[in-house]
Amino acid sequence: MKAPAKKYIPFAQIPLEHRDWPDHIIDKAPVWCSVDLRDGNQALVTPMQLHEKLRMFRTLIDIGFKEIEIGFPSASETEYEIIRTLIEQDLVPDDVTLQVLVQARPELIKKTFESVKGAKNVIIHFYNSTSTLQRKIVFQKDMDGIVDIAVQGAKLIRQLTEEEIARSGMNIRYEYSPESYTGTEQDFAVRICHEVMEALGATKENPVIINLPATVEMCTPNTYADQIEYFIKHLPNREAAIISLHPHNDRGTGVACAELGLLAGAERIEGCLFGNGERTGNLDIVTVALNMYTQGVDPKLDFHDILSVGKVYEECTKMEIPPRQPYVGQLAFTAFSGSHQDAIKKGFDYMKNTGTEYWEVPYLPINPEDINRQYDPIIRINSQSGKGGAAYVLEQAKGYRMPKSMQPEFGDIVKAAADAYGDELNEVQIVSLFNKEFVDLKGKYELVERHFHQAKQSEDAQENPTVFTGVIAVDGQKTDVIGRGNGPIDAFFNALSKVGVTGYKFINYDEHAISVGSNAKAICYIELQKPDGNHIFGVGIHSGIVVASLLGILCAINRAEKQKA
Amino acid sequence: MKAPAKKYIPFAQIPLEHRDWPDHIIDKAPVWCSVDLRDGNQALVTPMQLHEKLRMFRTLIDIGFKEIEIGFPSASETEYEIIRTLIEQDLVPDDVTLQVLVQARPELIKKTFESVKGAKNVIIHFYNSTSTLQRKIVFQKDMDGIVDIAVQGAKLIRQLTEEEIARSGMNIRYEYSPESYTGTEQDFAVRICHEVMEALGATKENPVIINLPATVEMCTPNTYADQIEYFIKHLPNREAAIISLHPHNDRGTGVACAELGLLAGAERIEGCLFGNGERTGNLDIVTVALNMYTQGVDPKLDFHDILSVGKVYEECTKMEIPPRQPYVGQLAFTAFSGSHQDAIKKGFDYMKNTGTEYWEVPYLPINPEDINRQYDPIIRINSQSGKGGAAYVLEQAKGYRMPKSMQPEFGDIVKAAADAYGDELNEVQIVSLFNKEFVDLKGKYELVERHFHQAKQSEDAQENPTVFTGVIAVDGQKTDVIGRGNGPIDAFFNALSKVGVTGYKFINYDEHAISVGSNAKAICYIELQKPDGNHIFGVGIHSGIVVASLLGILCAINRAEKQKA
Repeated sequence: MKAPAKKYIPFAQIPLEHRDWPDHIIDKAPVWCSVDLRDGNQALVTPMQLHEKLRMFRTLIDIGFKEIEIGFPSASETEYEIIRTLIEQDLVPDDVTLQVLVQARPELIKKTFESVKGAKNVIIHFYNSTSTLQRKIVFQKDMDGIVDIAVQGAKLIRQLTEEEIARSGMNIRYEYSPESYTGTEQDFAVRICHEVMEALGATKENPVIINLPATVEMCTPNTYADQIEYFIKHLPNREAAIISLHPHNDRGTGVACAELGLLAGAERIEGCLFGNGERTGNLDIVTVALNMYTQGVDPKLDFHDILSVGKVYEECTKMEIPPRQPYVGQLAFTAFSGSHQDAIKKGFDYMKNTGTEYWEVPYLPINPEDINRQYDPIIRINSQSGKGGAAYVLEQAKGYRMPKSMQPEFGDIVKAAADAYGDELNEVQIVSLFNKEFVDLKGKYELVERHFHQAKQSEDAQENPTVFTGVIAVDGQKTDVIGRGNGPIDAFFNALSKVGVTGYKFINYDEHAISVGSNAKAICYIELQKPDGNHIFGVGIHSGIVVASLLGILCAINRAEKQKA
Repeated sequence: MKAPAKKYIPFAQIPLEHRDWPDHIIDKAPVWCSVDLRDGNQALVTPMQLHEKLRMFRTLIDIGFKEIEIGFPSASETEYEIIRTLIEQDLVPDDVTLQVLVQARPELIKKTFESVKGAKNVIIHFYNSTSTLQRKIVFQKDMDGIVDIAVQGAKLIRQLTEEEIARSGMNIRYEYSPESYTGTEQDFAVRICHEVMEALGATKENPVIINLPATVEMCTPNTYADQIEYFIKHLPNREAAIISLHPHNDRGTGVACAELGLLAGAERIEGCLFGNGERTGNLDIVTVALNMYTQGVDPKLDFHDILSVGKVYEECTKMEIPPRQPYVGQLAFTAFSGSHQDAIKKGFDYMKNTGTEYWEVPYLPINPEDINRQYDPIIRINSQSGKGGAAYVLEQAKGYRMPKSMQPEFGDIVKAAADAYGDELNEVQIVSLFNKEFVDLKGKYELVERHFHQAKQSEDAQENPTVFTGVIAVDGQKTDVIGRGNGPIDAFFNALSKVGVTGYKFINYDEHAISVGSNAKAICYIELQKPDGNHIFGVGIHSGIVVASLLGILCAINRAEKQKA
């Protein structure tokens, strides 16, 4: 690329004497204003039709938005239509305010007032562009000329408002945006907003919403916060203003601008669900709200079923939510890495076992269930997933709780299979691998018949009270066997030496029920030491817990014999 | 949603005594490290195959990455394979360093060293998890136990490194990550990194990369910057460390974390192209680099053809780049809003006319051509696009430069058509609307023949030297007409009164060539005042500039007559 220094001018720092915002925290929700139906809709490849707008409006209400910008009724028949429909069909709850946008131009302002006739609560949002660049290139006016546009607009709006209030008692508030605020000299932004507030007669009791858009993101988000803090500190009659943010996302930092802007003192945020809007979009309100939620702050917006909101969004806007979008994206609660899966599993276990009231699960910044989602571990063995992941999937799928010592062995099996397969393994494949390797394995030794009884009085009956008698098939050849031991496993083990199974040492066993009720099956995990000193595992499943353990032992031995072969 | 305050614990603020980072600016590129082949690949729904990894590697080299994390060779056969392939096929340029990741565990460290045999430059990147939560839930070790894991790992790595250097002269550097750094007590993070640096023998001449991952984004990006500043200020022997960032994006603020982390003193950044990685992904390096570029800072990465990079990315990862992704997304350089289109057009005109060396176009934070893209105005008339946009499209498509005074009239026509059509209009539709309304209009009056001559000497030849004679068809009925005037237009106008056209006043005309050469055609825009006082426009196109103007006049009158009918 060409050297950028020759044509791009670095954004100037804001001359803040004392910077306070980094010491603040976000401890309460701002006023939220949805601009989905205006700013968001405007930049859709396929704009919403009336029925889609109505559906979106209902969804916004359900989420809890109390201020909704509906459109630019003076500029578009379709936006005029939606406003009239909402008002005439009485679709607006009493506690919800319709916001309409208009340029600071007389003919447009008049049409805008016509469009809202009959509404209960209205915000008249007017704007003109104030940036250095737009003044020079687009308007070719000096600062006084730009202030004049805004103040004349304000005066007309105030006059029409007072007439409307006298006539109908409509609840009308004002919002003014110095559009392209981020590119405006801060002292000029303060001046024009102050003069507009004066013209509108703003008071503490009847404050004006002063909306400070990052129409284009032009700098790092800390600089936007500096601008907001500078503006607030310099605005005369600040208590007569509600400071509102309207971030965009050209530099991928819209969410950060909103958050740091709140730290800097803003009280209100405009944005869209999942971030539509010109170019790279408006601020995504969902992310800011749920970020707040994860910090213990109630965002006063309800996303308890975020995928349903996502569905309405996708169907109305014809846009797709990217898979890595925070909170709502398809992959937002997945874990591909084995160590992540392992830690998440331990976190869930910890929470279950301790009953902690806090959310303490690594790698998941929020409990997915809060927004009606699920954590989704994805075994990716050809990278570095492994033991924990496979064990987790098996537990989820079949209820098998493999002992930790066994996990590396099964992990290696899964890993080798995945490498051979050349792709990730899904749950079905993992269960199938486990069954093939352990449950369904047919090997050299097979248990055909088994009986246990207590040893009769004899010399060693004290020490080895349990007697196993049965039939073992060795390569299909049935052999009667007998063994004694201090318990069934020991007795069986000793019986096996009669068919040439020697050199194995019993190390450990783990057993648990895998279904409920009196006819429940049990699964038994057996760890043996092989004659070469290495360990090997076997698994047995049976309705009898003793038989399950015998099957597990034979499984381990059969696997060991197979490895030798 | 349930009240969040009961289970989510707000992230604690960092006790910085003097906060310096908000006073800094980003004025040079960091060292970039791509983790596309490891962290990014690991979390793909369809991981890359070997040939795709090689293609991605070549692309990363072309972009200018000098440090590339290839994988976790001790944990995955496929990652072992790519590293061996790169080394054995001599695919790594001499100035590029291969980075390999490994947990701080002896058996894995040994295998990792085997995997890089024969490489020229290597970074051995080891990690263990240090956060409060992971220590408690996953490792069940105290701080000393966690430090011991790291220090033992460091010692083994140093020993194997010294052996390898003695044997092969390989250039080996170290990187240590306290994984889950953002959830770690800062003093403990400092301690463990310091002890690791000591164990590795870090010096100013041979610094260790200390990588501070936001493994999970847990707080607003300013807090991450506070952590980085705190860490740097408290790290003993700080000059023996290269401070590296590894942001993720759970809160949608990965880019902001990278930027504010740089302000806080970090010197290196790890991330992925367009942001893959667990859950919501790793930092998107492209956005951070191009953000830098727009501030006049050379990012030392080359994205001069960003769509080609995007294509490689999409084909290798099977992920789609979202349409609103900064810089690369399909919609990143679109303007749907009419006022935006108008301002952008004026910006382009201003730059052309003044030859300014700076980029001074509103609403476009970068010249799209720098990254081989184009600005794409999209006429969206059913919202609030309009005059400027339609005029711009017409100019782009046909070279017609409609005078500003005419734009509202055509804008209304386009707007009505779009409202009727119920969707946006494309370029072809706009041109077709213009032709239907102006160029191809057949109306009441038609010019059949036309001649001009100079008036012979007579009383009023001084004042009205031009004579028009011709034939006008009125509703198909041909009539000979004659008129005199001070020029052709005046003469024609007067001739029209002979066929009953009266009450019109000539206001203005604008004419320009629309093709090149001696046989160029001209387009003429005529503005008339109608008998009712309102204005109306007409257009004529002809190879003769005079005829074009006559056609324009008739067009305006025909349109006015049509409106009356």
